[in-house]
Amino acid sequence: VAVIASRDNQRVLAARRLQLRKHRERERRFLIEGPHAVEEALVWSAPVTEVFHLWDGAGRAVDRVVALARERGIPCVPVTRPVLESLDSTETPQGVVAVSERVDVGLETVPTGLVPVLVEVQDPGNLGAILRSADAAGSAGLVVTAGSVDLYNPKAVRSSAGSVFHLPVARDVRPEAVVSELRRRGIRIVAAAADGRESVFTSNLTGPVAVLFGNEARGLPDEVAAQADTTVRVPIEARAESLNLAAAATVILFEAARQRALQS
Amino acid sequence: VAVIASRDNQRVLAARRLQLRKHRERERRFLIEGPHAVEEALVWSAPVTEVFHLWDGAGRAVDRVVALARERGIPCVPVTRPVLESLDSTETPQGVVAVSERVDVGLETVPTGLVPVLVEVQDPGNLGAILRSADAAGSAGLVVTAGSVDLYNPKAVRSSAGSVFHLPVARDVRPEAVVSELRRRGIRIVAAAADGRESVFTSNLTGPVAVLFGNEARGLPDEVAAQADTTVRVPIEARAESLNLAAAATVILFEAARQRALQS
Repeated sequence: VAVIASRDNQRVLAARRLQLRKHRERERRFLIEGPHAVEEALVWSAPVTEVFHLWDGAGRAVDRVVALARERGIPCVPVTRPVLESLDSTETPQGVVAVSERVDVGLETVPTGLVPVLVEVQDPGNLGAILRSADAAGSAGLVVTAGSVDLYNPKAVRSSAGSVFHLPVARDVRPEAVVSELRRRGIRIVAAAADGRESVFTSNLTGPVAVLFGNEARGLPDEVAAQADTTVRVPIEARAESLNLAAAATVILFEAARQRALQS
Repeated sequence: VAVIASRDNQRVLAARRLQLRKHRERERRFLIEGPHAVEEALVWSAPVTEVFHLWDGAGRAVDRVVALARERGIPCVPVTRPVLESLDSTETPQGVVAVSERVDVGLETVPTGLVPVLVEVQDPGNLGAILRSADAAGSAGLVVTAGSVDLYNPKAVRSSAGSVFHLPVARDVRPEAVVSELRRRGIRIVAAAADGRESVFTSNLTGPVAVLFGNEARGLPDEVAAQADTTVRVPIEARAESLNLAAAATVILFEAARQRALQS
């Protein structure tokens, strides 16, 4: 196979465009950076369409991922380092970038259970970290509303550490549509807020329950918070200023996991 | 006051050197980036020696911080945007960078209580995030061992969101010295490990307890883990691969906070 050495190669250009959300929306595809995330995508049978990899000296982790992709009949494209670097958004590219079709599901497909809902979350690292924590805490799925950072932002994909490929995630849904679908199913709705009425440690988080998390700076929009059955806070020490969103979500989702384990 | 417009100004050069750990060690000073962190430093009476700020159009948050610094008689140095940017390690500098003397304390000064101990943690974002969570969860203090990332790495300082300025933190202590000091005080030692013997949710984390956290990739050194009274894990869903270190530490420290609140 010929090594691609030009950043202006059509195939490379087509993939690089996916660094921008508008192109990801149009083409319904996204980028997966680094051997770890690409391996997770392959292991969980994500619809990977193409794998760009350093043509030489990429290291064992990349070699293994490329072998796995080849086994599955996925086109693997050897490229030079400058080409690989042009496709990867990190400071230290790890030798492989894949292109995949979207993996999200429709809202009606998200199973009932513990379901975090991210409303206008803006930081891709927070989205990825919450997705990873939600997965580890045994969530049934996750919802990202319209107006949030893109689920397919490369940093969000990377920091989800593979969870985006196996936890059912619905995206680009209006908050009102989410609330009415949750209500229709009889799922309790809990809003996370720094000044929430109940401590998360004394609030009942068992059974079918959705937890709404808002924007990093503004929190939840009033009209969304008003739809919740209750609001919960993570109690914090007075001198500490706050928790960041991903940390607060991690505490709440694992407290839900703790309560649910006690019941089973 | 004259606006400094040269990145080669002696005062600017002296501050910029503090971006490197070896200079921070030598000069026993460090940088604080952005109005939020500088304000926290001032509010908590950190020994700030100098404040560099955009000479014009820096915005209200920076103006407020500079006014506060002036009130306290701290020299404030107006600089041009290129000079400010040369002092700040972030992609989008927020208009103010301060220099401070160290704020850490001796190991013997860290109060007895809930005390996280970071052993060879490498990522400054993780260190800062754990420091912030430890503070919010009501820890008595925190210890960072020798061989870890620098407590005064600008990213660690920034992501601690002010906690570095008011939680007692001991640094640069050998793990063996930490363990023997903890033992001397009769503090129980718990090691966090992905394959820990006990679930954190059923392990007793009340009373004087230190929780050891290891390196992101390698975990705790065997000889350190062997010193612990028990090892605890955050139970995670089988399909999820792992939690990142900061998330695991947040779960463990807030579970300790939950248990301690029940007792009081």
